[in-house]
Amino acid sequence: MDPLSFPVNAACPIAHALDVLGEKWTLLILREALAGKTRFAEFREIGLPREVLSQRLVRLQEHGILVKRPYKQAGARVRDEYVLTDRGRTVTVVLAALYAFGRRHRPDLPLRTAEFADRVSGNALTLELRDADGRISDSADLVRR
Amino acid sequence: MDPLSFPVNAACPIAHALDVLGEKWTLLILREALAGKTRFAEFREIGLPREVLSQRLVRLQEHGILVKRPYKQAGARVRDEYVLTDRGRTVTVVLAALYAFGRRHRPDLPLRTAEFADRVSGNALTLELRDADGRISDSADLVRR
Repeated sequence: MDPLSFPVNAACPIAHALDVLGEKWTLLILREALAGKTRFAEFREIGLPREVLSQRLVRLQEHGILVKRPYKQAGARVRDEYVLTDRGRTVTVVLAALYAFGRRHRPDLPLRTAEFADRVSGNALTLELRDADGRISDSADLVRR
Repeated sequence: MDPLSFPVNAACPIAHALDVLGEKWTLLILREALAGKTRFAEFREIGLPREVLSQRLVRLQEHGILVKRPYKQAGARVRDEYVLTDRGRTVTVVLAALYAFGRRHRPDLPLRTAEFADRVSGNALTLELRDADGRISDSADLVRR
């Protein structure tokens, strides 16, 4: 069998996802957003330059991942905040996969960081590849259907 | 509740995963590897410059994701091929997550591309966030544990 060849352009879902999420810093910004951060100064704390953050926030709004809205703290002037849309929250699966990969390769990392939990029940979540019968797979391939 | 703050350095599993996988082209190279491609010329077909591919292959070997071995076709001279290690195959979950994200945001993309299937049974696989009772979550947050 010939190795499977993928379309390299946006006709591949993986390539499309990387087009939206693949730029440096973008997924770390979304990690912070999923953890409840909303403000420019909060996102800056991950250590990226101001101009880069501005560009990333514009791009994420264009893709409908974040939405900008005015934010007013008591006694302070109105600022913008950037909130995940429902569409944007679907990035969770990508962050959970990176988390799983990172933990597997660096089991020495301190566990104090974070985990994923259901928003309603608060139950901890794990990411699994399952078939239609519910069996968990630990050895998947990419195949043409 | 204060928004959760993550360590931005390698102490965060997500940041560590991005350190290994986050450079441009790396995940597309691994997409091809997971689909059975092994040779330099095959990876070149995704459209990246020669020098960039060389750098990425070196990096992926340093991280134990790919291993280089000699490859000989009948009548041709010996060349190198680059094969996913067991450690490298754990990138599947990241590619499956990007695939799920990409399909969700671009349902118009032709389905001819590819899907994930179990290597042994051949059954199609889907990626799910589940809690300990097996309930699927569609609304996860990142929380400190």
